[in-house]
Amino acid sequence: MPAITATLTVDLAALCANYRLLKQRHAAGKVAAVVKANAYGLGMVPVATALAEREGCTVFFVATLSEAVTLREALPAAIIHVFAGPLKGEEADYAVHRLRPVLNSMEHLERWRAFRQHTGEVSPLPAALHVDTGMCRLGLSMEDLPRLDPESLVRECGLTLLMSHLACASEPAHPLNAEQLRLFTEARRSFPALPASLANSSGHFLSHDFHFDLGRPGCALYGITPNPDLPNPMQHVATWSAPILQIRTIERDQPIGYGATRTVTRDMKVATVASGYADGLHRTASNVLAAWIEDHRCPMLGRVSMDLTCYDVTAVPDSVLEGADRVTLMGPQQPVDTLADAYGTIGYEVLCHLGGRVTPVYR
Amino acid sequence: MPAITATLTVDLAALCANYRLLKQRHAAGKVAAVVKANAYGLGMVPVATALAEREGCTVFFVATLSEAVTLREALPAAIIHVFAGPLKGEEADYAVHRLRPVLNSMEHLERWRAFRQHTGEVSPLPAALHVDTGMCRLGLSMEDLPRLDPESLVRECGLTLLMSHLACASEPAHPLNAEQLRLFTEARRSFPALPASLANSSGHFLSHDFHFDLGRPGCALYGITPNPDLPNPMQHVATWSAPILQIRTIERDQPIGYGATRTVTRDMKVATVASGYADGLHRTASNVLAAWIEDHRCPMLGRVSMDLTCYDVTAVPDSVLEGADRVTLMGPQQPVDTLADAYGTIGYEVLCHLGGRVTPVYR
Repeated sequence: MPAITATLTVDLAALCANYRLLKQRHAAGKVAAVVKANAYGLGMVPVATALAEREGCTVFFVATLSEAVTLREALPAAIIHVFAGPLKGEEADYAVHRLRPVLNSMEHLERWRAFRQHTGEVSPLPAALHVDTGMCRLGLSMEDLPRLDPESLVRECGLTLLMSHLACASEPAHPLNAEQLRLFTEARRSFPALPASLANSSGHFLSHDFHFDLGRPGCALYGITPNPDLPNPMQHVATWSAPILQIRTIERDQPIGYGATRTVTRDMKVATVASGYADGLHRTASNVLAAWIEDHRCPMLGRVSMDLTCYDVTAVPDSVLEGADRVTLMGPQQPVDTLADAYGTIGYEVLCHLGGRVTPVYR
Repeated sequence: MPAITATLTVDLAALCANYRLLKQRHAAGKVAAVVKANAYGLGMVPVATALAEREGCTVFFVATLSEAVTLREALPAAIIHVFAGPLKGEEADYAVHRLRPVLNSMEHLERWRAFRQHTGEVSPLPAALHVDTGMCRLGLSMEDLPRLDPESLVRECGLTLLMSHLACASEPAHPLNAEQLRLFTEARRSFPALPASLANSSGHFLSHDFHFDLGRPGCALYGITPNPDLPNPMQHVATWSAPILQIRTIERDQPIGYGATRTVTRDMKVATVASGYADGLHRTASNVLAAWIEDHRCPMLGRVSMDLTCYDVTAVPDSVLEGADRVTLMGPQQPVDTLADAYGTIGYEVLCHLGGRVTPVYR
């Protein structure tokens, strides 16, 4: 018998529905999938395979070479871009696995050009060019553009995509959006023949001007809201549940958990559950979040431990409690964005921190 | 060539030195190792193997059955306890893999006893008994003890250890410590023949009364301070470094990162580094922590992204910067407890959240 563990149930139909919604929103109707960081913790290979096979998604983005090599094994025909670009000495791996680097700097361009010339262009070795329009993180500076000869660059570096990255797309009124659009439009003038990509998930919910030729959503595929100030249009994708290890009756005036931060003020039934911060339930959510048994909300008691958390199940009817062997920690009743609020972060980080002991289940 | 990645360099000699220090501190000189949650993110199998082979550690504790099965493959002769205890239906796996469950409830005791009787005790099937003395998390209640027949329980459940867990050992003056000691001493009277274990890492730095027969440290093995109010007596064990992807010169008045939370107020050299919150660098540390290049502190700029963070490297001499291809994010200059302060949590959580893209390296 396999061990009984916490699970992350990934609803691949909901994932695909989210992909279709983003495609509908996108002005050109062409949408890639960002599956870096193990598809934000949901499992890169099953997620990308579902999008490829069921929705015909052909273009993917990952963060690192290692991720790309893993994805290539699963999807031999996909177009796979790597945001980090080639570190010194990694160029040959890009060629062997037919990966497209995102070229982020003059040094990247020169190194990739030299590598292509060296290989004699026996393989096509395409690449994307990243221009920074307001993040100061990765990408060519706008000031570098006038120094380039775009036509020879496109040819010699095998450029097939021009891209940039929005810093504030989840806040539609932020003035940086218009400024980034202006700069990207300017950059595009140097590369009129290249398809262009600017919109992350939130960008699909800005005006069509931001959409260009290819959408590049990540978070919204996984059910995270693209705009925290509006109702979430995305379907719920990932449900985290965990086994109940023990239910006990606590007499009043007893402390619960590390640091004795919480004292029970009345007799209480307490469920101890097999998920803690090593499983991704941030310790900053201590005494804040809840677990759910069917539609019954069970408030957290005391600090999140490494492997365990405790919940007040007093209000759950005995008939329900007797049949319950698990609780839901993230689900439609308490979605990823609610966990994010309790952690003081964004949904992306919640999903990424789900730990190795939480077994993924796909349906 | 393997891809160039962020790495977690684990100093196994320092780990072993920490184990020896804890053994010296322990009144009985007998110390197990807690290696749950993948040895707090450092790698369960290499860590446990080093402690077994170099230091003669024979007793280990993990949280779940899955972890125990993995550890059993690596250490065929070790004594392996599982804190969660057997979930319904898991008993046979404990027998097959010769694992010792920690029995946490009357229900565990009854189920384990029935299972032992059912198997006819062809194998010894030992177990530990956990009595709760002040956590209300797992463990038998003190009120359950008078209802037991300890002698037959020890025999019929194969009990070989009595244990409890301290809630506030990192705060030596906390009154709950004395109360837990009193209750554990009381529980022990029912099981005078059983070896007893109470002290976690911090417990080794309380008086000898807390030590009993077996220490059960986790965090201090990995370099985390056992008492945040005193100088850390443990050696530094885990060093996190990450590749520099790009160094660029930013002109003043440009925003950096998501949300444009930080604007550069002077011309600056900025390094973009391949580690973000998906790698375990909490987003709550945005604009707070630093990266280190040799002995040069490089302050973080802007928000932590999923895969990237940016640092101000203006003050690093050119001669150093030219040779630098990596930065240190956690090391002797910025130890795990400093990261914990910046996240608003404890060192345990910092280590547990180190992500799957951070490649472990053992030396």
